Amino acid sequence: MITCDELRLKDKIDTFATFGALDNGGITRLSLSPAALAARDEFCKRCRTLGMEIKTDDMANIYATLKGDENLPAIMMGSHMDSVVQGGNYDGILGVLTALEAAETIVAERIPHRHPITVVVWTNEEGARFDPAMMSSGVIAGKFDKKLMLESKDKEGTTFGEALEASGYMGDIKNRLNRKDYMALVELHVEQGPVLEAEEKDIGIVEGVVGMVNYEFTFIGQADHAGTTPMKYRKDALFAAANVIRYLHDELDKLDSNLVYTTGRMNVSPNIHTIIPDYVKFTLDARHQDSKVINQVVEIIKSVPNEVDRCSVSCKELWSRKTVAFCEEFVDFVEKNTNEYGYSSMRMYSGPGHDAQFIADIIPTTMIFVPSQNGHSHCEKEFTPLENCFKGANVLLQTILDIDKK
Amino acid sequence: MITCDELRLKDKIDTFATFGALDNGGITRLSLSPAALAARDEFCKRCRTLGMEIKTDDMANIYATLKGDENLPAIMMGSHMDSVVQGGNYDGILGVLTALEAAETIVAERIPHRHPITVVVWTNEEGARFDPAMMSSGVIAGKFDKKLMLESKDKEGTTFGEALEASGYMGDIKNRLNRKDYMALVELHVEQGPVLEAEEKDIGIVEGVVGMVNYEFTFIGQADHAGTTPMKYRKDALFAAANVIRYLHDELDKLDSNLVYTTGRMNVSPNIHTIIPDYVKFTLDARHQDSKVINQVVEIIKSVPNEVDRCSVSCKELWSRKTVAFCEEFVDFVEKNTNEYGYSSMRMYSGPGHDAQFIADIIPTTMIFVPSQNGHSHCEKEFTPLENCFKGANVLLQTILDIDKK
Repeated sequence: MITCDELRLKDKIDTFATFGALDNGGITRLSLSPAALAARDEFCKRCRTLGMEIKTDDMANIYATLKGDENLPAIMMGSHMDSVVQGGNYDGILGVLTALEAAETIVAERIPHRHPITVVVWTNEEGARFDPAMMSSGVIAGKFDKKLMLESKDKEGTTFGEALEASGYMGDIKNRLNRKDYMALVELHVEQGPVLEAEEKDIGIVEGVVGMVNYEFTFIGQADHAGTTPMKYRKDALFAAANVIRYLHDELDKLDSNLVYTTGRMNVSPNIHTIIPDYVKFTLDARHQDSKVINQVVEIIKSVPNEVDRCSVSCKELWSRKTVAFCEEFVDFVEKNTNEYGYSSMRMYSGPGHDAQFIADIIPTTMIFVPSQNGHSHCEKEFTPLENCFKGANVLLQTILDIDKK
Repeated sequence: MITCDELRLKDKIDTFATFGALDNGGITRLSLSPAALAARDEFCKRCRTLGMEIKTDDMANIYATLKGDENLPAIMMGSHMDSVVQGGNYDGILGVLTALEAAETIVAERIPHRHPITVVVWTNEEGARFDPAMMSSGVIAGKFDKKLMLESKDKEGTTFGEALEASGYMGDIKNRLNRKDYMALVELHVEQGPVLEAEEKDIGIVEGVVGMVNYEFTFIGQADHAGTTPMKYRKDALFAAANVIRYLHDELDKLDSNLVYTTGRMNVSPNIHTIIPDYVKFTLDARHQDSKVINQVVEIIKSVPNEVDRCSVSCKELWSRKTVAFCEEFVDFVEKNTNEYGYSSMRMYSGPGHDAQFIADIIPTTMIFVPSQNGHSHCEKEFTPLENCFKGANVLLQTILDIDKK
């Protein structure tokens, strides 16, 4: 079977790791930052060398296209190049570089293809500089209001709109991904979790992105002095919150074992060691591919009483998403190819969100996962062995060629 | 019996409430701030009008003294004039103003007294601008190193030493409170708790300041992605912390019912709703007058395992203090006087720390508490009815006169 070039892929990974490089091996490459623009320049330079035509749309998404033999809509592959603060060299960028390597292989090996083949780079997937995450694919898919997005500010007060204008990558709205000009998207991404490694699998065949809910609980007590207020008079919002966290674990652990849930953010006020906390908030994020299980989670959330330990308790949904199912035909192509290459694999759902989940609303889409060492992601320790990157690139290449033939 | 002048005391409270006044009735009068210096100027002006001699020491503590009939060491009364951010009009300042009113009554009524009578104002009791609290009484009592204190910085980077020099109130080290020149201190203060009000008592006869320990717990887990990490692989530091808070409550509630304990400060990292918390700290503050009970608390703290929910757990003592017992003779004077005035009262220990607890190491000392409405303190809602302030001033006055006669 046709394969990519492992050393050429290594060169790509090593080169792009220099854009925003930090001392401990990771990167900070915030969206549209100088480091991210340098990575975009290098990407475009390499695409032009391969004879690809480059367009950008009004959200600075980049579309680098190899002409096809026939006048057909293009097959897309790609991901994002921005990172979180102190992120790693695989999340997002590996999906771009394996796509670039697949395109380079097609050019170098003169592999015939009927459809044009486009490598795409989505702008601001992380949302680490400009909230929200998956901003530009979301605008294209009608999930986010573009006007609001342009007003999103970074910590220095620069708006996304200003950064976009200054980037030199803002193009025409007509160049956006659409059903007429594009017919498929395959996004390779690191798993960002420990399952593939623990199960000793090379490739994750991604069937979709799990549904989720995100709630915020608020506890209101009374901020009295730690030294003067007898226990029986206290309204300790942190104690109430700790008890509700315990309750949620007890109840949620009774549901399906594939459910994941997280109390990731907690803020305590006034947060002084000699004052009883009077105001505590925490978030609960819960994900599962089956909407019935998500509904059970919501029932448990709603079962928390309005008053706990003499504190008032309320909760509200911050956001939610329904499970996104990927194109079954493409999922089958990925599975077939992992088998044909002799790679081990497993079917799975993505827990995190990805640009592909929004694009799946517009054109048939799927994803390919490669393992994350120790499950680390969004940190400098994020790592995927070259061998796994190479295997992922090969499955991506063959899947694109399968879609081209169908 | 002799009494102070209630309307004159009201005028004092109303006048001093203007220094640092906020829109909602409270004040921000940080130590040595322009508002605090204006309050000091007004205090000194009023003392001079009463014929008092004013000295300041090297920590800018103010000693305003009425001459006595004999050549004896002085009897002191007073408190502090600084507040926390968005504090109230009673914590600290009421101890200064009732002392000033008692002195004014002695002058106006020409009450003979053998000892000089000094109204004292301690610098930086709150520690809200310059850490730590009770700084200047602590330096005098040898609890804190003066050199380190001078280097303590506020949020703007100004050191306490610089603020002291600029204040115009820095005096001679020779003027510090000492055993030769001073023989007693009585500090009136608001209770800062709900007990006197709940028990419908006018006066708290303060027998001492409770002993306390303050520990910080640290939980280290692993910061994995909320969407990808199966529950069984997780090391959730916040879940571990919530369970330990629950455990501490369960165990500490078995001890003496006068024990108070507080988990007031908790910091969660990275504190992002989609990341499992990997680093959580919280403080445990526990107070009781009996050191045996405090020792039981420490045993319970030490009984927390080193590993909880797959997270490592450690704890360290941040600080502690032994119970301070006040001068029994003075405590009896206070009790006698509340009875003679016909005021209701109860004996109690102070939970919060006060300058008096440090001075108690040097000269015989006691405190008088007046009720705090709803137990509020360190907030704009802090309030003590005028009637209670007046009763407190009378007990203070008579106690000073009793000490003078003994």
